[in-house]
Amino acid sequence: MTTTGATPQAGAARAGGYARGRRKREQILQAAITLFGEAGFHGTSLRDIAGAAGISHPGLLHHFPTKAAVLEALLEHRDAVDEADLEADRERGTDLFTALVHLMERNALRPAIVDLYTSVAAEATSADHPAHAYFERRYARTIALIVDELAARRDAGELVPGLDLETTARSLVAIMDGMQLQWLLARDLPRAQRPDMAATLGAYLDLILVTPPQDAPAP
Amino acid sequence: MTTTGATPQAGAARAGGYARGRRKREQILQAAITLFGEAGFHGTSLRDIAGAAGISHPGLLHHFPTKAAVLEALLEHRDAVDEADLEADRERGTDLFTALVHLMERNALRPAIVDLYTSVAAEATSADHPAHAYFERRYARTIALIVDELAARRDAGELVPGLDLETTARSLVAIMDGMQLQWLLARDLPRAQRPDMAATLGAYLDLILVTPPQDAPAP
Repeated sequence: MTTTGATPQAGAARAGGYARGRRKREQILQAAITLFGEAGFHGTSLRDIAGAAGISHPGLLHHFPTKAAVLEALLEHRDAVDEADLEADRERGTDLFTALVHLMERNALRPAIVDLYTSVAAEATSADHPAHAYFERRYARTIALIVDELAARRDAGELVPGLDLETTARSLVAIMDGMQLQWLLARDLPRAQRPDMAATLGAYLDLILVTPPQDAPAP
Repeated sequence: MTTTGATPQAGAARAGGYARGRRKREQILQAAITLFGEAGFHGTSLRDIAGAAGISHPGLLHHFPTKAAVLEALLEHRDAVDEADLEADRERGTDLFTALVHLMERNALRPAIVDLYTSVAAEATSADHPAHAYFERRYARTIALIVDELAARRDAGELVPGLDLETTARSLVAIMDGMQLQWLLARDLPRAQRPDMAATLGAYLDLILVTPPQDAPAP
């Protein structure tokens, strides 16, 4: 069903309502990113989020019935943005590892998202956390993706011989997570004194790859 | 001043009081380790800690006037235990890197401590967190210690040529932190399916060292 039969006025009014609803939702999610990043999921209340978003508590409940629903929407939103960026990068012919380095470069421009992810991932290791299953799936998927890429590199003779693929994939993810923590801890320092997340990931790739990705012959 | 002039009875009574006080303090810290690990510092109240330790709220305040004081005592306690273990290991002639692998092996036996450290470190990236300065100092000290060891290895011809020492030290710490997160996330899985934190750190050391530490000639 389309709405092409509606009068222009009704369509415009409805679009205005949708746009207003979307804008409110955006405001709520932006406020939640900052608060969850600072105080964690457990340390933030729905009232805190409503206050920071400048809406009433019942107004917030209209959009998100529970705090877990806010977190779920945030994580889904982050994943959608990340996957779109990664996909666009790969469509330009970038290999997975270089695309992950680019992801770290983008993360260095959005501390609030990195803070959210680091705080909530640490909390969500508890089995009863609402995002526990999400992080289990996310890590399993990411590690499987990297193991596949490592297997292809090994078969192409581009991997240091003898590496265990799962251990290598987990190390790569650990460097990304661990460097995000060190980078956040240094966020009050001048830019030149902060650790470089992308360069550190690149240094690990240099250790495990025999031929750097950008020098590999085109297939 | 010593207490050798006191009567044996008074001395025994005082020792009993001290022992009781120490025991209570231990109970409080044990309860706090579990709660901070599960819900983070912000997600835990002093009342939660008193309840889990089986003492009254005023009883808890007698030992620790604020929640930040509980956290500070916990982190100091963990550091004292870790440093004593590491020191004992090094006195047996173990090099720093192997001692860090042993630390990861010990951590695999104490999930509550690993959970506490991971959750609080993630929260403490915020400049206004009571443990922020503690973590800044801790990371600076650890990275400086590892950089010194890397420099000595480089001078002995035991390091892969061309590595940036600070980047390598930060990567090593990132692998320890990141693997703790992945290990915690998998803590409900059977032991064989959990990632091996110590082996993953060992795999990184194999990548950066030309001669494994245990094969190095005695000085």
